[in-house]
Amino acid sequence: MVYRLWTPRHWLTMRARRWTVGVDFGGTNIKVGLVDPRGRIARSRVVPSRRFGRPDAFIEAISNAVGSITGTVGIRPAQLRGVGVGAPGTVDVQHGVVHACVNVAGWHDVPLRRHLERRLRCRCAVDNDANLLTLGEWRFGSGRGATQLVGVTLGTGIGGGLLFDGRLVRGASGSAGEIGHMVIDRRGPRCGCGRRGCLEALVGTAAIVRMARRAIRRGAEPLGTLAREAQGCVVPRMVGRAARAGDRLAREVWEKFGRRLGIGLANVVNVVNPDRIVIGGGVANNWALFAPALRRTLRAEAFEVPARAVRVVRASLGDRAGIIGAAVLVWNEIG
Amino acid sequence: MVYRLWTPRHWLTMRARRWTVGVDFGGTNIKVGLVDPRGRIARSRVVPSRRFGRPDAFIEAISNAVGSITGTVGIRPAQLRGVGVGAPGTVDVQHGVVHACVNVAGWHDVPLRRHLERRLRCRCAVDNDANLLTLGEWRFGSGRGATQLVGVTLGTGIGGGLLFDGRLVRGASGSAGEIGHMVIDRRGPRCGCGRRGCLEALVGTAAIVRMARRAIRRGAEPLGTLAREAQGCVVPRMVGRAARAGDRLAREVWEKFGRRLGIGLANVVNVVNPDRIVIGGGVANNWALFAPALRRTLRAEAFEVPARAVRVVRASLGDRAGIIGAAVLVWNEIG
Repeated sequence: MVYRLWTPRHWLTMRARRWTVGVDFGGTNIKVGLVDPRGRIARSRVVPSRRFGRPDAFIEAISNAVGSITGTVGIRPAQLRGVGVGAPGTVDVQHGVVHACVNVAGWHDVPLRRHLERRLRCRCAVDNDANLLTLGEWRFGSGRGATQLVGVTLGTGIGGGLLFDGRLVRGASGSAGEIGHMVIDRRGPRCGCGRRGCLEALVGTAAIVRMARRAIRRGAEPLGTLAREAQGCVVPRMVGRAARAGDRLAREVWEKFGRRLGIGLANVVNVVNPDRIVIGGGVANNWALFAPALRRTLRAEAFEVPARAVRVVRASLGDRAGIIGAAVLVWNEIG
Repeated sequence: MVYRLWTPRHWLTMRARRWTVGVDFGGTNIKVGLVDPRGRIARSRVVPSRRFGRPDAFIEAISNAVGSITGTVGIRPAQLRGVGVGAPGTVDVQHGVVHACVNVAGWHDVPLRRHLERRLRCRCAVDNDANLLTLGEWRFGSGRGATQLVGVTLGTGIGGGLLFDGRLVRGASGSAGEIGHMVIDRRGPRCGCGRRGCLEALVGTAAIVRMARRAIRRGAEPLGTLAREAQGCVVPRMVGRAARAGDRLAREVWEKFGRRLGIGLANVVNVVNPDRIVIGGGVANNWALFAPALRRTLRAEAFEVPARAVRVVRASLGDRAGIIGAAVLVWNEIG
């Protein structure tokens, strides 16, 4: 009965299924966005995540945000194609369970997909946030056309995703791509994960702050003034601002950051031999300050053949990558 | 014309196509084996490889060995299913070119497949030796049933291969899986590749010998006696023998070896999240001496979720893995 395709009710449903919601659950903010089939974000909401440390409060907040955002286009959550969520930790994609959230307390083996599906009455999918950045950049950003893509997120933590031949590599238990916890300096600083000298311990936000404080003690200006104005609170953004304003010691912090990241990525280049590496996350906003040192170190440290095969580029979707990637996940996993 | 299937000549050809030759080109020996469709080696030859440093001499030697080995079952090389070769270096599988052989001089961008096919008049395939160990163990050895398999070869160099969902991951230029040149100690000993603190520099043969010499200086017995009997020449086999004979300091060498390898494999476990790691190569003969420390370190150093998902096992094909893997390569690539 072909005519049923054209009943007003069906037309409404088809129209409703246009929309997908992407949720990017970060250490600082939860971003919720309504995504159209071309990967454009029509509406978005940002909620600070500190308030929702506990999983049930988080699920409540997400549900409310999804409800209010779908309301703006006149549909209910049940009329969505689905809701995709990126979580900062190890995720069992098959069962929709968040095993652990690094840098967010109280998350341990949370069946997030089941909880969300019960609340929202629509299909949901959950994955690691770095996987979703990789997926989003591959589909709509600077990872387009790559066949062996590595995505990297620079922030409080260092995350990563592998996408080979158009498919995310998830590994045996969904945690493939965790390049942040690759040890590159056995005798280096202690990492949040308990080991010593992980890439994250060398180039995560805490490491940048540590390097910046050392620069301030050595008389870095205007970095020192900026820090004093902020009552001694140093953040990576400040180090970037100072470096762009001509602070030599702040520039050196980014040089060192680039070199350390270069060693880590040289390991990744040798082990997985990608044709492209896309780098995103908040700290990637200082791209021009660290990219030359990063590229130089990568060329020098990786094997010649795989080093020639790889192109290192900055993510182009910016802070929308997480939301868009979560929507792409829904299309891939749910249809 | 169905009856042609049954002419004596066709029958002979079919019978001839039973056989595949696998060549395992190592730093010390070249092993050539005639493999039947069940992965059993019917005949084999071993030729020391030092004599054939130059590629043309090597091709000559391989061709002669293949000719003589096929002669023993009454066929010519042209009647083989194909010849598979594993080379210790970076290989462009698609074009059959050996870019560089680590630990073997004079090999640089050699179109090995083309040369061999011209000489032998049969189809040939070339890949990295560690990839072939992984392939062989997955098909006939202790990697059977694994979906995310990592193969590791311990010897003069440390090689690796990745096999996901039954397919070798080759990367953008055929060098994926080179875990030996993952830096795990930025300030560690210099590696043959020019970098510092690669896994190979910490657990390759040279590192074992260095640790053993230190043990001898500290009075290791019977290791010291064994070394003196060999005119001061120390090899890993000797350290294994001494440890099994109760030499406490030699045992400590293997403990340390296991811990270092454990850190390297913890990185691999975090990055690719395999369900199995198969360890082969000559040095793996000391399995009982280093496996407990390796497993303990891996559990402690890798993330909990991927660490629980992985099983670390010893390769079961022994020194036949290279030949058998080369034959499996022929079946996969040529048919």
